[in-house]
Amino acid sequence: MQAVVKDKRAPGLTVTRVAKPVAGPGEVLIAVRHAGVCGTDLHIADWDAWAQGRIHPPVVVGHEFAGEIVQVGDGVTGLSVGQSVTAEGHIVCGHCLQCRTGNGHICKNTRIIGVDRDGAFAEFISMPTGNVLPLQGIPTEIGAIMDPMGNAFHTVLTAEIPGSTVLVVGCGPIGCFAVGIARAAGAARVIASDINPKRLALAARMGAHLTLNAASDDVVQTVAAETGGEGADVVCEMSGVPQALHQAFRTARMGGRVQLLGIPKGEVPIDFANEIIFKGITVYGVIGRKMYETWHQMRRFLTAGLLDPRPVITHRFPLARIDDALAAIRSGDAGKVILEIA
Amino acid sequence: MQAVVKDKRAPGLTVTRVAKPVAGPGEVLIAVRHAGVCGTDLHIADWDAWAQGRIHPPVVVGHEFAGEIVQVGDGVTGLSVGQSVTAEGHIVCGHCLQCRTGNGHICKNTRIIGVDRDGAFAEFISMPTGNVLPLQGIPTEIGAIMDPMGNAFHTVLTAEIPGSTVLVVGCGPIGCFAVGIARAAGAARVIASDINPKRLALAARMGAHLTLNAASDDVVQTVAAETGGEGADVVCEMSGVPQALHQAFRTARMGGRVQLLGIPKGEVPIDFANEIIFKGITVYGVIGRKMYETWHQMRRFLTAGLLDPRPVITHRFPLARIDDALAAIRSGDAGKVILEIA
Amino acid sequence: MQAVVKDKRAPGLTVTRVAKPVAGPGEVLIAVRHAGVCGTDLHIADWDAWAQGRIHPPVVVGHEFAGEIVQVGDGVTGLSVGQSVTAEGHIVCGHCLQCRTGNGHICKNTRIIGVDRDGAFAEFISMPTGNVLPLQGIPTEIGAIMDPMGNAFHTVLTAEIPGSTVLVVGCGPIGCFAVGIARAAGAARVIASDINPKRLALAARMGAHLTLNAASDDVVQTVAAETGGEGADVVCEMSGVPQALHQAFRTARMGGRVQLLGIPKGEVPIDFANEIIFKGITVYGVIGRKMYETWHQMRRFLTAGLLDPRPVITHRFPLARIDDALAAIRSGDAGKVILEIA
Amino acid sequence: MQAVVKDKRAPGLTVTRVAKPVAGPGEVLIAVRHAGVCGTDLHIADWDAWAQGRIHPPVVVGHEFAGEIVQVGDGVTGLSVGQSVTAEGHIVCGHCLQCRTGNGHICKNTRIIGVDRDGAFAEFISMPTGNVLPLQGIPTEIGAIMDPMGNAFHTVLTAEIPGSTVLVVGCGPIGCFAVGIARAAGAARVIASDINPKRLALAARMGAHLTLNAASDDVVQTVAAETGGEGADVVCEMSGVPQALHQAFRTARMGGRVQLLGIPKGEVPIDFANEIIFKGITVYGVIGRKMYETWHQMRRFLTAGLLDPRPVITHRFPLARIDDALAAIRSGDAGKVILEIA
Repeated sequence: MQAVVKDKRAPGLTVTRVAKPVAGPGEVLIAVRHAGVCGTDLHIADWDAWAQGRIHPPVVVGHEFAGEIVQVGDGVTGLSVGQSVTAEGHIVCGHCLQCRTGNGHICKNTRIIGVDRDGAFAEFISMPTGNVLPLQGIPTEIGAIMDPMGNAFHTVLTAEIPGSTVLVVGCGPIGCFAVGIARAAGAARVIASDINPKRLALAARMGAHLTLNAASDDVVQTVAAETGGEGADVVCEMSGVPQALHQAFRTARMGGRVQLLGIPKGEVPIDFANEIIFKGITVYGVIGRKMYETWHQMRRFLTAGLLDPRPVITHRFPLARIDDALAAIRSGDAGKVILEIA
Repeated sequence: MQAVVKDKRAPGLTVTRVAKPVAGPGEVLIAVRHAGVCGTDLHIADWDAWAQGRIHPPVVVGHEFAGEIVQVGDGVTGLSVGQSVTAEGHIVCGHCLQCRTGNGHICKNTRIIGVDRDGAFAEFISMPTGNVLPLQGIPTEIGAIMDPMGNAFHTVLTAEIPGSTVLVVGCGPIGCFAVGIARAAGAARVIASDINPKRLALAARMGAHLTLNAASDDVVQTVAAETGGEGADVVCEMSGVPQALHQAFRTARMGGRVQLLGIPKGEVPIDFANEIIFKGITVYGVIGRKMYETWHQMRRFLTAGLLDPRPVITHRFPLARIDDALAAIRSGDAGKVILEIA
Repeated sequence: MQAVVKDKRAPGLTVTRVAKPVAGPGEVLIAVRHAGVCGTDLHIADWDAWAQGRIHPPVVVGHEFAGEIVQVGDGVTGLSVGQSVTAEGHIVCGHCLQCRTGNGHICKNTRIIGVDRDGAFAEFISMPTGNVLPLQGIPTEIGAIMDPMGNAFHTVLTAEIPGSTVLVVGCGPIGCFAVGIARAAGAARVIASDINPKRLALAARMGAHLTLNAASDDVVQTVAAETGGEGADVVCEMSGVPQALHQAFRTARMGGRVQLLGIPKGEVPIDFANEIIFKGITVYGVIGRKMYETWHQMRRFLTAGLLDPRPVITHRFPLARIDDALAAIRSGDAGKVILEIA
Repeated sequence: MQAVVKDKRAPGLTVTRVAKPVAGPGEVLIAVRHAGVCGTDLHIADWDAWAQGRIHPPVVVGHEFAGEIVQVGDGVTGLSVGQSVTAEGHIVCGHCLQCRTGNGHICKNTRIIGVDRDGAFAEFISMPTGNVLPLQGIPTEIGAIMDPMGNAFHTVLTAEIPGSTVLVVGCGPIGCFAVGIARAAGAARVIASDINPKRLALAARMGAHLTLNAASDDVVQTVAAETGGEGADVVCEMSGVPQALHQAFRTARMGGRVQLLGIPKGEVPIDFANEIIFKGITVYGVIGRKMYETWHQMRRFLTAGLLDPRPVITHRFPLARIDDALAAIRSGDAGKVILEIA
């Protein structure tokens, strides 16, 4: 079958043919219809320090996808050929403390598809049944972006949203999803900041009441002014930029909540006394999607039509044009970039 | 009456006579029996930068105390002369968002006794009734330290303690209280770290299963070894020391909780990705005592005999020897230092 | 001033003139603009068993209102003449366990305006400042119904709503508010049941996706069918009817939540094993409004325009026509009935 | 191998020889060392209405056990021959809403060992690996009673225990475990009631501060007197007796929590207004053990020595004396009855 493969310890990805996988015991084989391209795929293509330490070529890349079950392995119950499905890409151990207490998303033994084993930029992928989620009528182009949208759901819905003022810092695809989710979940006011006008326009389209260009607007002062001096009830930090982290802590109200999803590089100096402790703030580190509360909530929002994430999809390419897909992400102007397969 | 007064904008405290206060409408007058001496009093005595910006002499200092009601103001119900009481020293506005939503401990309009108005190092103090808590049989020497002990209760009991491994970083008086509270609340294992052997001995006496001298022991590695590689479920950071903050984040298990009470000076560089986000940690800034859940819980623990905080009281002085009390704190070896009045 | 008074221990209410109250220390005097009429007022007018045991005539009735501050008592801060306000009608002690732990709504020493002391069906009412809430631009006709709407907010927002299926059993005014609140807070699907077609039409107007006439529809089967056999995530029981209670427990999904606001008369036989225990259900008894989280949330929803409760107001009368107002409620067809004063 | 079998649709159990099971893919074979006898086994032996509707003979009975892994099936990771283990007896589907949202204990597709498939009163049992919990040094005689003790942990630890007054209604084995767990988790005061003096003595031995004989003591009045008129913060109803249910609701304080584990037969009339709604109570139906938070907590308590459940084990029999074991339970005086195998 056709697949996008990291085949050597050097920059670049290769579109080539590899053996079609089979569904082992407890697995299903899925014909991939759509796949989402992520910053992680860029790191793998660029062969950066993280990739060099983690990836063992050859490996089929890609971890965001949806498609149709075409084969069911031994012992599989509850899933059948023909079902339209997506899947959680984190394959967890099921035995560790975290898995045993409902926190599989931080299982220390996690293996990620497209990173630690073959992934989804291919015509077919086999997946353990526990990771597979029937789409219940959600189109596969949306199913293919439920992984990153799930990060946004995890970020937003682990805070108290109905009636709250929510600030989303950073309007990449996950930030834009977060804006839409906060609106759908009854936020009283959603403010979004970024330095890219295209991304801010996308955030506005997803429902932000107010967008701030952090390059020219004073985010901290504006949020204070917009909230009667209180600050935001919930801040979702989705940029990983050091200045944005400070904005996150400084815009959060006394007793507010700061959700950290963006990944800063290296250390960032923080004034714990004034930015966190004296404010009585709660900070939560968001990693992946809660398995599987987040998926359940997301499917509910999507099937009920509470949220239409499609405006965030700005680019579509066939599998063979993976390099164009990566270039679109590199431009910094893209929302979500997806691959159309088969 | 006799009182300890900050009477000029310069280092030092003065023991002198001032006018006896009266109980205004909605207030009670309390004859102070015991008062606790706190690091904040040291800052005021030393006239450091914080004190210079906050204190307006003359002011009677002291904010931790207990005593007996000797006069009841107009309109006071539910309290009566002769009752043995302590009091929350944060006088809050009752109208702001935080006060209205059960978070008075982070009211932005807080006035603190002994800081923003006359305090408790005196024979008498008047207090608004809402701040007054009957001791229900708890001795005043314990009542006098319920303010700092309340910080420890707030820190420990806002985490999930029964069955948990709890690490207390920093064994000053509040850290030592935290050790005892964690034990009483059913922690499976309590580990305490400090660099002062006397404080570690006190932590052990309060019930720590294991004490670590951070000057010689590798705290991160030892906690890992003691927890089968998991890390601590709950870490209470009570030192404010930058290295200890890193230990707090690094010893917390995946999905763990870090309670921050110690106040670092200035900025501390943090690796948000590896210390918080990838670990899925929750961080909570602890300020004061929840008004009044914390006091209610504390009174329950004390009246039930779940906790005896008296070993933490290492020094007792009459009011006039405030300088000796401050010197005991400066030595770094003291547990809790209290004043005996009347 | 003109007022509606319960002036004797017998059925009926009297419109008469009484002395205008004054604002005592810590109180404000409010010129009432709008007041809501409630089932409780009907009980008082009818002089039923409850009223005979609780009411001590003469008393000005009415507990739902909004108006303008016209006088400020001694020691009042944070409120001023000319402000448009509403108020919580439960005056609580502030000292009991419940008040001290953020649960003033279940204070055992509660005194209710219009029941235990003079109320709001009058040109003026004095209120303790702690009970007074500035309307922040909300019109007084809405302010006057924030008491019963607050019961609906309390009922709905103490459950997890975003993405949930919510069943509202009983579409009186509070049920209709609950429908609108659930929609605004991101419920995936809101189903409402009643036996009165006018009330069901009102529920539909407030946003119910589906309305069921319990006289002709099989509520339990229909909810099952609508939820793929699961049942509702959250059921709000707002009727107090025994059959409806059974429907509430039977329509709740395994692990669901049943919020009980409607007051059944006498005992209702329940199959605890099959209706609650084996289903792992959580049941919550709703009384009043959380003081003051509920008011804060409600004000946020209303000022943000997340909810327009005005369709529920079906009748308006001047104060002197209190009997017509009561008759409208007795008809069973009314939504919310309000009085227009001055 | 030797096993206790329900072999016909009639009262009685048979000790006989059956084929030794094997560990299929994803399963382990466990040599049973100890097994707990439960009221459910009595229902099966007695062939009551429930058993007639649920059990399909022949089936090996018994669902509480611990033993040693003697064989590991294909694809099993994380478990090995020689490990001492116990197991959750509810085998759940993993796919339903409840399983997907961390509530597997109320999976509608649950199959119970010893009920819906062969169980643990046998020399060997095969179990899916997900259900198997290594004992980490806990003796198998305790491991064998972790199923019912888990019900007690689930009941107690889903309430807020540190500093609380806890009333345990019904002192069968699960009630006695609950007493010990509440003490270990920092309850300020634990009161236990029953009508059997032997059971009350066992509750006292497990740490109850006060025991009440419901046949002679006025439980409601005594709890009120013991709590300054407040009532209990947490009530664990573990008897299923109608009068006890009323005591549970009436002894719970305003805003308290009532955990329902005991299974009443038929309907019980409840005064919802006064027993639940006006009190603002939360009621929680307890079924099974949270999978696997409860097991994790329980293992922590047991390995830390926070709780010694052994006093509750009052009778031990070899497998062949199952009838004597059942007779001990029928007597009403037994604590926990266990079988010793091999």
